[in-house]
Order: sequence, then C-alpha cells, then structure tokens
Amino acid sequence: MFRNQMPRYEVLSDDAMAVLDRGWRRILTEIGVEFVSERALDLFRKAGQDVDGQTVRLDPDFVLEQVAKAPREFDVQARNQANDVHIGGDHMAFGAVYGPPFVRQGEVRRDATLDDFRNFSRLAQSFPELDSAGGVICEPNDAPLDSRHLDMTYALQTLTDKIYMGNVVSGPNARDTIAMSEILFGGREAIERTPATLSLINCNSPLRWDDRMLDAQFEYSAANQAVVLTPFLLMGAMSPVTIPATLVQQIAEALSGIALSQLIRPGAPVVFGSFLSNIDMQSGAPCFGTPESAIGLFCTGQIARRFGLPFRTGGGLTSSQMPDAQAAYEAMMTLLPTFLAGANWVMHSAGWLEGGLVACYEKFVIDIELLRMLQVEFTPLEIDEASLAFDAHAEVGRGGHFLGAAHTLERFRTCFYRPLLSSSANYERWMRTGARDAAARAAEISQRTLAEYEPPPLDDAIRAELEEYVVKRRAELGD
Amino acid sequence: MFRNQMPRYEVLSDDAMAVLDRGWRRILTEIGVEFVSERALDLFRKAGQDVDGQTVRLDPDFVLEQVAKAPREFDVQARNQANDVHIGGDHMAFGAVYGPPFVRQGEVRRDATLDDFRNFSRLAQSFPELDSAGGVICEPNDAPLDSRHLDMTYALQTLTDKIYMGNVVSGPNARDTIAMSEILFGGREAIERTPATLSLINCNSPLRWDDRMLDAQFEYSAANQAVVLTPFLLMGAMSPVTIPATLVQQIAEALSGIALSQLIRPGAPVVFGSFLSNIDMQSGAPCFGTPESAIGLFCTGQIARRFGLPFRTGGGLTSSQMPDAQAAYEAMMTLLPTFLAGANWVMHSAGWLEGGLVACYEKFVIDIELLRMLQVEFTPLEIDEASLAFDAHAEVGRGGHFLGAAHTLERFRTCFYRPLLSSSANYERWMRTGARDAAARAAEISQRTLAEYEPPPLDDAIRAELEEYVVKRRAELGD
Repeated sequence: MFRNQMPRYEVLSDDAMAVLDRGWRRILTEIGVEFVSERALDLFRKAGQDVDGQTVRLDPDFVLEQVAKAPREFDVQARNQANDVHIGGDHMAFGAVYGPPFVRQGEVRRDATLDDFRNFSRLAQSFPELDSAGGVICEPNDAPLDSRHLDMTYALQTLTDKIYMGNVVSGPNARDTIAMSEILFGGREAIERTPATLSLINCNSPLRWDDRMLDAQFEYSAANQAVVLTPFLLMGAMSPVTIPATLVQQIAEALSGIALSQLIRPGAPVVFGSFLSNIDMQSGAPCFGTPESAIGLFCTGQIARRFGLPFRTGGGLTSSQMPDAQAAYEAMMTLLPTFLAGANWVMHSAGWLEGGLVACYEKFVIDIELLRMLQVEFTPLEIDEASLAFDAHAEVGRGGHFLGAAHTLERFRTCFYRPLLSSSANYERWMRTGARDAAARAAEISQRTLAEYEPPPLDDAIRAELEEYVVKRRAELGD
Repeated sequence: MFRNQMPRYEVLSDDAMAVLDRGWRRILTEIGVEFVSERALDLFRKAGQDVDGQTVRLDPDFVLEQVAKAPREFDVQARNQANDVHIGGDHMAFGAVYGPPFVRQGEVRRDATLDDFRNFSRLAQSFPELDSAGGVICEPNDAPLDSRHLDMTYALQTLTDKIYMGNVVSGPNARDTIAMSEILFGGREAIERTPATLSLINCNSPLRWDDRMLDAQFEYSAANQAVVLTPFLLMGAMSPVTIPATLVQQIAEALSGIALSQLIRPGAPVVFGSFLSNIDMQSGAPCFGTPESAIGLFCTGQIARRFGLPFRTGGGLTSSQMPDAQAAYEAMMTLLPTFLAGANWVMHSAGWLEGGLVACYEKFVIDIELLRMLQVEFTPLEIDEASLAFDAHAEVGRGGHFLGAAHTLERFRTCFYRPLLSSSANYERWMRTGARDAAARAAEISQRTLAEYEPPPLDDAIRAELEEYVVKRRAELGD
C-alpha cells in the first residue's frame, strides 16, 4: 500500500495550537456533548463525567486519558492478505465514494441501483490505487430497504478482496456486518485479533451523537472493529463561519466520540475523522474543493498527529454536476492537500460528484488518475551521485538532445509517470482519434475495466455460508 | 499584490542539496556552456573564464560571485503605480499565457490574431488576480511579421496599465521595447531607476544560449531591465530522464545566464527561471501537469532561495486539447505546487492550453478561478481567542445550527471564498439554468468581461507619441 514519506505541510504555529487547545477544552467543559444513548450516558456517568439529561460535560484531561488508550496505528485485514491495510503513520489508504443516492453515467443521471453498487465494487477491485471499495458506494435503491445492508456487504465481500466498511444504519445492521465478517474471516476471534472492518460514525454536528450511529459504534468497538469518528462540518450550518471555531468543534466532537469507544473497549481502534467544508451563504448549498476546506485539511492533519491518532479526511470532493473542469480542479484541490496533510484513511477517493449526491462512472476514472499521479508525486526523490547522470551530460554536451542517450535508452520505459486517462496527443492525432474530452475517455476506460473485471477467487463453502446468512436474515427482516 | 505568507513546502535534504551542488559545479567546469555571441564570449574571456570556441567553461565560484551582485528582490513599475510589482521575497506576481500561435474559443481552434492578442490583454487587465498580461499572450499571425512586436507592445501599454514583458526575438526588437517604455514612463532614466519591463530569455537547452535571445538580453540588462533566465527543460529531450540530473542542468544554465547579465551590468535585475516538465517517451510529445513537473517545482523553489534569487516557474499548464477535466486537474497540479513553492514570477497563469500551443478563452477564466482560490488558500489563518467564536457555540449549543447565529449574521457576506466560475447550484436549479458545464460558463464570463472592459486612462500626448513610434519603426522595418 502507499506510504507517504514526503514532508507534511503544516501551517499551525505553537501559539495557534495552544489557542485551539484551550478552545476544545472549553467546549467540552462548558457546552458539553449530547449522546442520544442511555448506554453511552451510563458509561460516562460511571467514569465520573457530568451527565445532565443527554448532555455530557467532559473533563478534557479525562478525555485525553481515554484517547491515550487508542492505538496510534493498527491493521485492517482483507480476505486477500496482499490487500491488508495499515491505518496510521505514513500509510495512506484510499476508499471509493460513500453514500450517493444517485448515479451519473454520461448524460444520464438516475437513481442508483444494486447493479451500480456491484459495478463500482468491481471498479474499486480493479484499480490498485484503491485499498477499498468503501462502504455505501452508492445507495442500492432497488434493493429492499431493511435488508439492503446485507446485499451491500455481500457484494463488497465477494466482488472485492479488499477491506470494506461496515454498515452503520443501526446496531442490528452492524451486528449483521460483524456476523458476515466472522463467516468470511473464520470466526469472531479472527476479526477481534485484527479488525476486518472500518466503519464511519458521523456526528450530528454540532456536538450531538445520535442513537442509531451510537448503537452501531457500540457493536463495532465492542468487537474491536475500527470506527472513524467524524464530525460532519459544513461551516455556516453545522459549525461557525470561522475555521478556528470549526477546528475546535471538530476536536471536541471527534475526541468525545473516541473517548466513548475507549470506554466501550479500551484499546479499540479508532480514527480521528474530519469532513470539513462550508456552505454557500447565499443559497445554503454545500461547497466542496474550496480554499477553506483545503486549509481545514492542512490543520486537521497537524491536529490529529498532535493527539497521536490516525486521521481520516479528504477525497476527490466537488460540488460540480458534471465530470467537467470544475469537478477536476475541486477534486485536485482536495486530493493534493490530502497528500500534503498525510491523511491515513481517505474516503470518497473515487467517483464523488455533485456534493456527494452522485456516484459517477467517469469521475471515478478521473479520480483514479489523480490518485495515480499523486502517489508518484509523493514518493521521495532519490538524489545521489548516480542520479545526476553526469555521463549523459558528457555524452550529449551542449545544444544536442537526450532522446538517444544511453542513459535515456536504459530508462525510457519507466522513467516517467504513464497516465491512465490524460492525453498528450497532438491536435492532429487527437482529432483523428475522435476528439474526445477527458470525460469521454474516462467513460471508455470505466466500460473497458468492467468488461475485463475478474472476480477474486472465494471458497465455495464460505460463499454459500454468506448467501445462507443473507437469505435467512432477509427473511427475518421481512423483506 | 499577493504575498504568500504561508510556509514553503521543501523536499530537499541538506545532503540532497550538497549532491546537487557538486553536480552543477561539475557541469559548468567540465562540460561548459555555449554562448552564441561574440560579445558574451568577450565578457567571459575578460573575466578570466576558459573560452574555447563558443564554449565557456566556468569557474563555479566566479559564477557565484556574479550571482551575488544580482538584487535579491526588485520592483517592476507599471504605468499605474497601484499595479507596480515587487519580484522576490514572499511576493508572487502572475502573468497570462505566453507564446501560443493558436487560439481556442468554444469548439473553434484557429490561428491567433492581433484581435485575440488585444482581447486577452483586456481580459488580463480586467482580472485583479493577474499582475500582467505577460508578453506574447498569443502570436498575432495577421500582423506583419517584422513589426508585430510593436503592435504587441503598444497593445500591452495602452490596453493595460499593468507591467508587461519585453520582446526577445532580437536585439533590435528589445531596443524597440525599451524605446517605447521610455516614451510611456518618461525617459531612459525613469526606467533605469526602476525597471519597466521583465523579459523572458530562454536557454536552448542543453547548455546553449542562442544569439538572438542573447542580443535581447544584452539590451535589457544594459538598460537595467529585468530578465528571466530560463532553462527550457522537457526531460527526455532537453535534459536527462532523471529529475536530479535535470535540476543540476537547470542550475548550471540559469546561473550561467545570470552571470552574463551581471557582467553586462552589475546589479542588473534577474530571475532564476524554470520551465521543467517531461516528454512522453512513447510519442515524444511534451506532457504538462505531471507528477515530475510538480516535484521539479518544489525543488526549484528551494534551490532558488538557496542562491538568494527570485524565481519563475509554474502556471496553469496542461497538455489537454480542451478546457476539460484534464486541463483543470493538470493546471491545478501545477498551480497549487506553484504556491507551495512560493514562485515569485508565474508566467502562463491564465489561458494556457494544448501544451502551450493554444491560448484559450475558457481556460483563461478557469485559471483565474484557480488563482483566486489559491490566493485565499495561501493567506494565513488568524487564530486567536476571538476567532474561536465561543459565543456562537454558547448560542447554538448541541444539535442546532449556525445559520441564524449572531456570529454568522455579522460575517455571512465575506466569511467564505465566493467563486467566479464554480457552481454549487443543486441539480434542479442547475438544470433550470441551462445545465451548462464549467467551460460553457467560463465562455460566458469571458464574453461578459470583454463587453464590460474599460480601457485604463492614458495621456493623449503619450499615446500619440507611441503611435508615432510604431508608424515610424514599421516603415523602417519595411512592413
């Protein structure tokens, strides 16, 4: 998997950090956090925190004690060991878009279906730049509502052999994910030893954790499955309109959720989550790929490292309706800072369009190209005497060219990044080959990739057991 | 003008720097640089350097002595003082695309004309993100060949009141630029006191400076006009296929050109130039917005600072044929690193398409949007107690929203970046307003901007004198 051994881009001074530190402490102490869960309130009460109705006012030092119990880094296992993922340190893991109810393919925008879900799973399996198809790659609207989490988990488990995210719609859904993971990985002990899932627990920002997500968190943390505690911050709506105020809220929310996981099971793997952008103050619409979101990214990385926690943020975010120039520059405006910040778990790395409402086949391929480029860009240069290629200079001298130099001929196949999607064809050649823009070429690549997809091998008995579980549970759920 | 007070992103260790340092010294000493100019060879000979035919083998310490005579920072004056530019330090100045023979507008790609040149000048004047229209914004193919430099200079001087670049096709052309600048700024002394032009002197890489560019350099440096000494490096063709080998060549070339300027006139203002990307090793086509070019950018900034020189690099480069997703992500892949590297003079900041063969109206607007976003992104956050907006948190509490908070209402007009081009409209609204992609919206913005353009005021006598000069010189040149 990709390790980012380039320097981190850090913008917060020690003074700024100290101000932020006072800020989140004050929020936890004076305003507190709402937990819509009796179990959570009980745990905090027993731990001596100030519980008032559903509001918990937390002692910041108690929170830090809990945070210190979380692992700084951890593994998530895939059914193909070669695809195991390490979360933390200089490792960066990438998952596809998560959550869109709609799909765009070419000019058609429509409700997403289970077939789309499967197709995106196949795409995620096919591109080595992705460590995971993610979780809800798109909402399979044609699958029965109460049991579609089974369909999604089954698709992720069978069509890919990479890590996957667990369902978080409710505690029972989380239990199903865990049960199916036990089947796939050979029992509870196998997944408790090394987590087999990584699941997204969103805060209902500001400062409130809702019951269903908390129920899922209880299941996952109790089973030692990783959770990503993510403040959901569109500045202006879920947080104040200044970045520092939003950062302290983000810290307060993320740490309060992480503290809960540690009360559920000390040492349970957690990720400091961030989903931070802003709304358009005229229309109220969410904006992505903004300067504010990039600044938030730089700061979040530095903050998470300060707490010794792996962190999640970034992706190829955009507000654009089409896989056009805006989609591309906004995605790059988020993804390049994601690498500069050294995010450990990058959701929404491929396919995100229209503020996350749409999973787009063409954008998926565009984002894969961005990831491929950035993975090369953030690989340290080796600079030693040999790399200076003095012999090449001596051979070519002044005013010549290096096309035929021995140094060139030895390296020409691998010396530069070779694009998946980008074209450097000249005008005549580009016209001759159809004058297609990047979106049209991306469409062709996505179709070709799906046509060439081969499912990763899976033991028939395990597949049968998974199917049986899905059938049985679907019946129980009345779908 | 924009000052980049954010941290620089530096990737070269001291050890790496030491290796590079040995490398460029060895190239200058053992391979040398070709200067196709008797005047240049004379200057080097008199300064005690080893001149063999047209090849000068340079003592690296002598070169550094010359480099030390160059100013670390300097001003370039505009005819509107408010548009004066400071080159160096944390200042970043941005000019439009330079050199394209073709123009693209919508689906039409055609030879560029003088009208296009004037239109791009107007666009550059209209957007405050640009400090300059640059120089050869596009090649005015319908203007007489031998005198079109007069038309271009006149357009830059009259349609904009920003700084401009001088013509470098020949010594006489440079003299014309200087003469016209004397008219505009009130005499030779006025432009010698503070340079009124900044001109691009390209190296014929590897390691060769050609006669016509050198003649122009002689004119400009003698008149204390700034020159940008720029190795032209498409790795694989003009330099070896490894980045370190290219970096040492770049240093050798840039410093040799800078040394010449200092021999022509000690203290003459110079800029360490960089134009560094790679070719596609299969087709030989130049590639832009590549990972390699971004790495080159990071390194070049660090290297130029080490020599105490302002530097030029970056821009919105792309190989794409259309203002599509590829054009946008490649431009961002170059521009964001340009800010991270803190480039002082950024050519090709707006309008570049098709590897620099095309000036594109839509891409111009797309690039302006990128510049606007990045100028906000690279403005330091103020983090103090007040910025934490604790009152807003106290007002909203847990589970509410900030849309109506007092803190929000006081700031909602200015709190976030407001886009020029990007749309965050939801699907229904976007469909209702024409379902236009970013390129279509950019076309409309460029047309509206041209329609609303107002020429900056210019003294009638000066305008008449400039016109008279153009007419007289055109006659002398036989056009």
